[in-house]
Amino acid sequence: MEARILSGFRDHLPERMNLRQSIIAQSKEVFESFGFVPLETPALEYSDVLLGKYGDEGDKLLYRFKDNGGRDIALRYDLTVPLSRVASMYQDLPKPFKRYQISPVWRAEKAQKGRFREFYQCDVDIVGSNSYLADAECVQIAYQLVNKVFGSDEFQIKINNRKILNGLVEYAGFASEKNISVFRAIDKLLKIGEEGVKKELLENGISEESIKKIFEFMAIEGSNDSIITKLETLFLEVPVALEGIENLKKVLKALKAQNVPEKNVVIDLTIARGLDYYTGIVYETLLDNLPNFGSVMSGGRFDKLIGQISGKEDVPAVGISMGLDRLVAAIEELGLADGNSYATADVLVTISEGNEEKALSIASNLRNKGVKTETYLGKGDLRKQMKYANKTGVPYVLILGEEEAKLGKVALKSMKTGDQEVVTEDELADKIRS
Amino acid sequence: MEARILSGFRDHLPERMNLRQSIIAQSKEVFESFGFVPLETPALEYSDVLLGKYGDEGDKLLYRFKDNGGRDIALRYDLTVPLSRVASMYQDLPKPFKRYQISPVWRAEKAQKGRFREFYQCDVDIVGSNSYLADAECVQIAYQLVNKVFGSDEFQIKINNRKILNGLVEYAGFASEKNISVFRAIDKLLKIGEEGVKKELLENGISEESIKKIFEFMAIEGSNDSIITKLETLFLEVPVALEGIENLKKVLKALKAQNVPEKNVVIDLTIARGLDYYTGIVYETLLDNLPNFGSVMSGGRFDKLIGQISGKEDVPAVGISMGLDRLVAAIEELGLADGNSYATADVLVTISEGNEEKALSIASNLRNKGVKTETYLGKGDLRKQMKYANKTGVPYVLILGEEEAKLGKVALKSMKTGDQEVVTEDELADKIRS
Repeated sequence: MEARILSGFRDHLPERMNLRQSIIAQSKEVFESFGFVPLETPALEYSDVLLGKYGDEGDKLLYRFKDNGGRDIALRYDLTVPLSRVASMYQDLPKPFKRYQISPVWRAEKAQKGRFREFYQCDVDIVGSNSYLADAECVQIAYQLVNKVFGSDEFQIKINNRKILNGLVEYAGFASEKNISVFRAIDKLLKIGEEGVKKELLENGISEESIKKIFEFMAIEGSNDSIITKLETLFLEVPVALEGIENLKKVLKALKAQNVPEKNVVIDLTIARGLDYYTGIVYETLLDNLPNFGSVMSGGRFDKLIGQISGKEDVPAVGISMGLDRLVAAIEELGLADGNSYATADVLVTISEGNEEKALSIASNLRNKGVKTETYLGKGDLRKQMKYANKTGVPYVLILGEEEAKLGKVALKSMKTGDQEVVTEDELADKIRS
Repeated sequence: MEARILSGFRDHLPERMNLRQSIIAQSKEVFESFGFVPLETPALEYSDVLLGKYGDEGDKLLYRFKDNGGRDIALRYDLTVPLSRVASMYQDLPKPFKRYQISPVWRAEKAQKGRFREFYQCDVDIVGSNSYLADAECVQIAYQLVNKVFGSDEFQIKINNRKILNGLVEYAGFASEKNISVFRAIDKLLKIGEEGVKKELLENGISEESIKKIFEFMAIEGSNDSIITKLETLFLEVPVALEGIENLKKVLKALKAQNVPEKNVVIDLTIARGLDYYTGIVYETLLDNLPNFGSVMSGGRFDKLIGQISGKEDVPAVGISMGLDRLVAAIEELGLADGNSYATADVLVTISEGNEEKALSIASNLRNKGVKTETYLGKGDLRKQMKYANKTGVPYVLILGEEEAKLGKVALKSMKTGDQEVVTEDELADKIRS
């Protein structure tokens, strides 16, 4: 036996955990500021609940096995399908059901740099509303959250609508059952380039002529307004596409009413999303300073998924998912994580033989005053304890010297400045907090 | 395919999730107030890292399977063994390494009422310290956290030391390799009664004579001081037991220095803990008002586990684990969860055809002022929206009436009192917060 970790999995040590937890707290704050309520579903599901929702490629990535009772089970692949199961099982939930979930998911992907087999998704979904207001709310949440986490508006939320892409069937003239493979190919434009997309389309049996039309469509660019005008002309006689265009117009109007800057939300017709289940608006969020990094927050409308799972009528739903691990990787790559320290404590109380009870009592009093206070629990002299303080990055160290003790005082050392001052126990909490 | 959930697993719907999240936040707060730092390990581990740490019974409860690459893997059974793997892999961590982890674990237990196959543990552990101060800190954390969560001191932390139990080998005269089965039997006293313990001891080949002595030992009761006096007499010539007694004395003294009330920490010689890996102090926390409910926070010292996993030298460690799901169940059973609501929002902004943009703008302004504001995203008239507000338990509802709009005002309805008042947009945030 050797102590080791599975390939594609990671231990999140305290420095990164502190960063992760602060982003999770920010997400919760944004989600709840819109009235989303928390949900948690099990890590394990019956396999048939998950199978067939993510395409054949997705099915292969499931961690699927038989439990002791012979049940065919699998670890969740995302949070959307479990939500859809919940929505179809609990009829009595308030509708619209606006829930958030922050949980790990598992995918047996090929291990490669920056791709993990266990990663966190922070999702909001709105079940039971087909309103464009729900679509707009998801985009607005992406705007608020990415803005908050990066403290910057240097990002773009790219939006599109599957209904516009559905209009391509008629416009570009390919069989409608090829829809999803065409969307998947289009969606890879940023990753594999035009030649790659063309190759994939050909492999999927799309004619040269159709491909030409698809590329003409993808080339439509400009301001949101000008793209909409061009699309309205192009799809003048394709009702499904016009529905999609109308949806984007309304969403943009709703975002404007909430002061989301125009520069942060742009129509991009090459955004399709790879998953089968999207039916309306789709979106991705790309960072200006990491153009090839991929999306940090994505999603869309999935009006058929819940009906597919319940076997009953369709229930409209829309959502967005933040990839915590991608966001953390982006923050680390942009060098924004430098301030993250290991320590959670505000002060370390050093200890020496004979003064244990005094130290414990001071520590306990500080905690009662709301100061995060660590008592040194190891063995070793003051030098060793200062080394520990240095390593953890705790901002203050308390030293109970004999001289000071006689005066009813203690020495408080700032690890940042190196300054040391002698203060009374009563003054301690205020000094540390200031 | 049928939408269904695995037996022994649960969906945590918003009401319970709000309660769970508040307890998790309280745990984090207590843990960090002692300077513990966060860690997260993967849900999946190589099976051989986990096997042989929990006894044969534990091994059988692992969710163990082969992944696509043929690796023998399993879902974590607890957070202690993964921590021990981390401690043996990352030599550069500050020592003592004081970490907390709040994560689900999985055990394929027989499904029965109140027993789940997926449940959360909130653990703190101190790696690299064999000081009684570390033992005392764990007990103190149990005291603080249970006190905080229940808002009451009606509980007892029962402490014992495996070294005292090890002294039983000599005192009661049974083979030392029977140790762990004797401890397991003793530990079940509360569950299966004296007859049950006796039966189990006999089945494990312990003689009637030894059993008599074991029961004499278990019968030692009284104040902490009197138990210690009796033990010191009983084990006068059993050095290992005297070490254990000395440890409990020091721990109690350290707790006193931190004002932990004596009534909340009591020596109980029948506390042994079922797991193999404990080597020193052990503890459980029982609620006065739910005496048969079992422990809500337990743990102990495990000085051999990390060495067992690393294959290198032993590293001392001690920790305590809070069973979130047990705690939540206790809160629900005690009727303390009544105040928990579904809604996270402070106010619901109702909406009607034509006033969408106005509603969105008001909602956005409220959010900017820190008010959690939900915009109604469904279809339906005001009556339906009020029904939704009632169901979610949101405290306020905002109504944009035509009359009020002319005056630049809105109507704010308190769902608690039913009162409705007409206020300006500027006054809204303050009214809702007050």
